[in-house]
Amino acid sequence: MKDSILVLSGGLDSTTMLYEYRERIALAVSFNYGSNHNTKEIAFARYHCEQLGIEHIEIPLAFIRDWFHSSLLQGDKAVPEGNYDEDNMRSTVVPFRNGIMISAAIGMAEDRGLKYVMLANHGGDHTIYPDCRPAFVDAMDAAAQAGTWNGVRVLCQYTNLTKADIARHGKALGIDYSKTWSCYRGGEHHCGKCGTCRERREALQLAGIEDKTIYEN
Amino acid sequence: MKDSILVLSGGLDSTTMLYEYRERIALAVSFNYGSNHNTKEIAFARYHCEQLGIEHIEIPLAFIRDWFHSSLLQGDKAVPEGNYDEDNMRSTVVPFRNGIMISAAIGMAEDRGLKYVMLANHGGDHTIYPDCRPAFVDAMDAAAQAGTWNGVRVLCQYTNLTKADIARHGKALGIDYSKTWSCYRGGEHHCGKCGTCRERREALQLAGIEDKTIYEN
Repeated sequence: MKDSILVLSGGLDSTTMLYEYRERIALAVSFNYGSNHNTKEIAFARYHCEQLGIEHIEIPLAFIRDWFHSSLLQGDKAVPEGNYDEDNMRSTVVPFRNGIMISAAIGMAEDRGLKYVMLANHGGDHTIYPDCRPAFVDAMDAAAQAGTWNGVRVLCQYTNLTKADIARHGKALGIDYSKTWSCYRGGEHHCGKCGTCRERREALQLAGIEDKTIYEN
Repeated sequence: MKDSILVLSGGLDSTTMLYEYRERIALAVSFNYGSNHNTKEIAFARYHCEQLGIEHIEIPLAFIRDWFHSSLLQGDKAVPEGNYDEDNMRSTVVPFRNGIMISAAIGMAEDRGLKYVMLANHGGDHTIYPDCRPAFVDAMDAAAQAGTWNGVRVLCQYTNLTKADIARHGKALGIDYSKTWSCYRGGEHHCGKCGTCRERREALQLAGIEDKTIYEN
């Protein structure tokens, strides 16, 4: 039964959720908020939706690029190199990004009579990104239920999984991860040096997936 | 102490909040989501911020007009006439509009190191607009706290007031309500027939304020 909207970036996590829950996903929404890598990842989001025959729309949120500050955003400071740990990745936080994207998707679900909004936040995000934590998604779920006539719910099935766990799901589903984008720098190829590239490489390795990603380093 | 962002439409309620909490409001944000009356009300929002020397920004949310369905939105069906009751006003709901606007303001507050987001929802909105109810604003407050590093809070000081109560606050503050906009039709003058015009007229009357609004009827 098609009852859900997926917030789909085109990265490893949400692409896995797209395949895993494809029977339930009526619509996938990608948000272009002016990050360095939005164009790269959204192209992959569109590709997978076309493969699966799932409606895909891109929503521009230009105000984030125009007003917010984060190394993830075009024209702001450089994305740091190194591991995916707090000190290093803190500058990549886009304030309340998941709150903004989930809220837009909740409105869209209510408008279309759909019951669920899915988001592929995962356990590895909790330290750095407060809007990926269980307390946040639980509160957004309560806000969605209270704030809509249809009692929309927020589903975050990967909240307590690691990225390697998610990659294992993808392996079982036969997903071609070379057609996903992680690098926060948004160059021609994955840089291989930023925290997200390192995290991606490690997850694919732990899941025993041959990594066909082209890395610049 | 300037510690807050106000979601300011330029209507009676949020304009009153702007004056009442002007010592605390560092920034007022108006959202242009493509309603019939956005242009009219945002002009008043800007006017009052200029009067008070408070920074004001307008954020476009074109995706709401492009994708959502509501008689409030340009190009959609007509705004109904008659009283401000459920059957009549249900078509004016813009799904999860407050969730979307509050989330954007939470992100903005986090970005600027501000602690509070203020919204002027009130008791008269509860029947028709689920994203004005106490359960909704409480959940958004929890989401803001959990989803930001600074523990941003959502403040809705008028949640349990009537519109007439708010007008009484405005009377004490000496606000010129002829420089606010309520009519959902967004014509040259207030139509005087839609539910919002009727509610506005009644509130001003109950508060004992001479109503200088020009109504078409």
